[in-house]
Amino acid sequence: MPAPADPLVADLLAALPADRVLVDPDVVAPFLHDEAEWAAYGRAAAVVRPRSTAEVAAVVAACARHVRPLVPRGAGTGLSGGANAVDGCVVLSTERMREIVEIDEAERLAVVQPGVVNDDLRAAAAERGLWYPPDPASSPWSTIGGNVATNAGGLCCVKYGVTRDYVLALEVVTAAGDVVRVGRRTAKGVAGYDLAGLMVGSEGTLGVITEITVRLRPLRTGTPRTVVGFFDTLTAAGDAVSRVTARGLQPSAFELIDRVCLHAVNSWKHAGLPEDAAALLLAQTDLPEPAAEQEAAAIHAEFEAAGARDAVFSTDPVEADALFDARRLAYPALEQRGDAMLTEDVCLPRARLAEMLARVEEIAARHDVLIANIAHAGDGNLHPLLITPHGDEPAKRRAQAAFDDIVDAALALGGTVTGEHGVGLLKLPGMRAELGPEVLALQRAVKQALDPHGILNPGKVVS
Amino acid sequence: MPAPADPLVADLLAALPADRVLVDPDVVAPFLHDEAEWAAYGRAAAVVRPRSTAEVAAVVAACARHVRPLVPRGAGTGLSGGANAVDGCVVLSTERMREIVEIDEAERLAVVQPGVVNDDLRAAAAERGLWYPPDPASSPWSTIGGNVATNAGGLCCVKYGVTRDYVLALEVVTAAGDVVRVGRRTAKGVAGYDLAGLMVGSEGTLGVITEITVRLRPLRTGTPRTVVGFFDTLTAAGDAVSRVTARGLQPSAFELIDRVCLHAVNSWKHAGLPEDAAALLLAQTDLPEPAAEQEAAAIHAEFEAAGARDAVFSTDPVEADALFDARRLAYPALEQRGDAMLTEDVCLPRARLAEMLARVEEIAARHDVLIANIAHAGDGNLHPLLITPHGDEPAKRRAQAAFDDIVDAALALGGTVTGEHGVGLLKLPGMRAELGPEVLALQRAVKQALDPHGILNPGKVVS
Repeated sequence: MPAPADPLVADLLAALPADRVLVDPDVVAPFLHDEAEWAAYGRAAAVVRPRSTAEVAAVVAACARHVRPLVPRGAGTGLSGGANAVDGCVVLSTERMREIVEIDEAERLAVVQPGVVNDDLRAAAAERGLWYPPDPASSPWSTIGGNVATNAGGLCCVKYGVTRDYVLALEVVTAAGDVVRVGRRTAKGVAGYDLAGLMVGSEGTLGVITEITVRLRPLRTGTPRTVVGFFDTLTAAGDAVSRVTARGLQPSAFELIDRVCLHAVNSWKHAGLPEDAAALLLAQTDLPEPAAEQEAAAIHAEFEAAGARDAVFSTDPVEADALFDARRLAYPALEQRGDAMLTEDVCLPRARLAEMLARVEEIAARHDVLIANIAHAGDGNLHPLLITPHGDEPAKRRAQAAFDDIVDAALALGGTVTGEHGVGLLKLPGMRAELGPEVLALQRAVKQALDPHGILNPGKVVS
Repeated sequence: MPAPADPLVADLLAALPADRVLVDPDVVAPFLHDEAEWAAYGRAAAVVRPRSTAEVAAVVAACARHVRPLVPRGAGTGLSGGANAVDGCVVLSTERMREIVEIDEAERLAVVQPGVVNDDLRAAAAERGLWYPPDPASSPWSTIGGNVATNAGGLCCVKYGVTRDYVLALEVVTAAGDVVRVGRRTAKGVAGYDLAGLMVGSEGTLGVITEITVRLRPLRTGTPRTVVGFFDTLTAAGDAVSRVTARGLQPSAFELIDRVCLHAVNSWKHAGLPEDAAALLLAQTDLPEPAAEQEAAAIHAEFEAAGARDAVFSTDPVEADALFDARRLAYPALEQRGDAMLTEDVCLPRARLAEMLARVEEIAARHDVLIANIAHAGDGNLHPLLITPHGDEPAKRRAQAAFDDIVDAALALGGTVTGEHGVGLLKLPGMRAELGPEVLALQRAVKQALDPHGILNPGKVVS
């Protein structure tokens, strides 16, 4: 092989075993972007797949020496373009760092490399009677490193919190190439600023995460109870969510699926889901019995009070699983249709949910765009899915205008432009509008402090 | 009144109504330090007691203009010297900012000024069927602002988390005197770095908090069940804690009180507490019945398996309250003895708790210092209390040596030097040892980024 023309690539090849470095454009191509439709991406000088913290440190040091961008990447399941390559960068994939280093029952914690897949950690924890709650819909594929980088949410958040709530400590390679540990292994600790918390959700712009210590909970036992509500309008479903919350109920999952999604899942999986309602709400309670029965009854009553056309208790776990599978399958089912799909991720105060859903319908009609809705309803976190035929440029432009209008509507109603997917590229304009210039200046000051030469995932989050 | 010689004080008097500014040394004196025994403090140029965010901003702007230190202060119940004055500073007391701005049942959140007393927020939330969990033992006096500044813990943390887990958003006056809002009102949100989380626990060194939005939970109903275990040795009590945790039980409070504390409470309050055991463990469960009964029985079984001389269920809420009152009263009861008391705050991995308690006993014997122990046992968070007669200088020196040895022992066992009280002044050397130079450099970079002239509470946390 001739010596590479790029001195950075030459350094990487000299510093790492040969199989760690990919430069063939065909091989590199799948590493250049995540799943964010229409987010721009550039050409990478190389993709590296380190196996250890020391190898990550060598890569960062090389990029620092050459003052070249480094773009960390988990499984590439992101939906905001946060892992998208910029021209001349090195993409650092953590896919080969998938060791579960330790699971400690006495301390209820696990230590993992960043490339460990979410479901693999959950399975390993379950074998020890422990539970890692954060469960993004991408959990069969997404990695803990990526989940930490985006502060991923999921179905359990509504009762059990998001990724940040479970991160105790991180090993991080700094922009200077130093390996540091932030956070702690103890249940509590306030020694210095919470740098571990700051790294969570920073999308690879403040350091490269090489090891993660997460808090675990005791494994849940018993079968959760599920309540299903069928609603003739999205706003009635939104009302039901507000009512359940205001009554002090705490479902362990509380999801919304609209008719478009149900139809897509039926078409793909022949699931036989009901398609005659505008939306269904799925609420689950995991309290110990008989409290679960009482909470399920109270949820049922609120569904009826909000005008559900039908509300049923699902006592059959197989049936309940099928409904939650439909929630998880909605996104890939819509993808199966072969259309392009732009995913929204606004999060609203719960009391504004009904109003926001009405606005989404109005925006869809106004821009003549098909918008499907799935939502972590109990969190007020909506994922309107803007669907357009591939290659239909006018439709794409209409969808982008609708996307912008949804962001504006969320801000007008006191919401945030991103509940759990991250800023990446797609939400940069929205974030600027949300935070305002003074807070953006603070964000940039933090970035400048920890990455003075701007080599870590430049152009994301704070650009 | 003659014009003050200090131009900063002149500016403060010009910018604020006269009653906001205190300069008389006798009046100023109580504002110069918190409750940390032996932590140094300096002389303030003035104490200001603003009533609004605008007044706080005016104070910060004046300090910025004169490049003079500003030391924010809540109720002064801190135990690390974090609110101690430095020479020539302005002490900013939030005691007059005690408005509960809003309690929103639908969103389960409250908005408060920083000077609101913890128990006052809890009471106001309870009237709406809501609960603010963080409950430091100082809750009758300490303020939400101070709790946020130190990321305060408390008895509930073992199941419900610390102050940071409840902070959604903050209004902050930056070092430049700008008023900014960080965080959000929604259940989830990842728009930019988590600056609100970064401010929590930063002890006034990154900004002055002027308004706080906290998440609330539904008010707990039902009577918790209490299990009391009497142990002949501290290490047996430590073993019991490990056993309860490893079995996957989740007490809603899990406290340790040793014989010295029990005796002090008895002497002060004639409480009639048993004093023949070395320590008692108090565990509470707040699950709905009958799960609470089962969890209480399981805790009881682990107490017995760990060698408790006696373990009893307390079904009488009055009796249970008396025991938890004893826990809360231990600190003031010891103070009543008239001795000086230096409070430790190490936090250990739970499995090392027994070993740490043994080391504390050994350190007490070696340095000939009376050390009482209270602990948030379920968190591994120990508060050894080093007690010396006032004015006994040799005893004070022995106590300080013992304090250092406890810190070293905690670090050697994988713990942190401060679980919930904060770094302040007392834990600066310990924090440096815990974090190491690379992480300290990151901490300082963050401080420099947000407070480039070093006017906010200088010498605390990161000096």
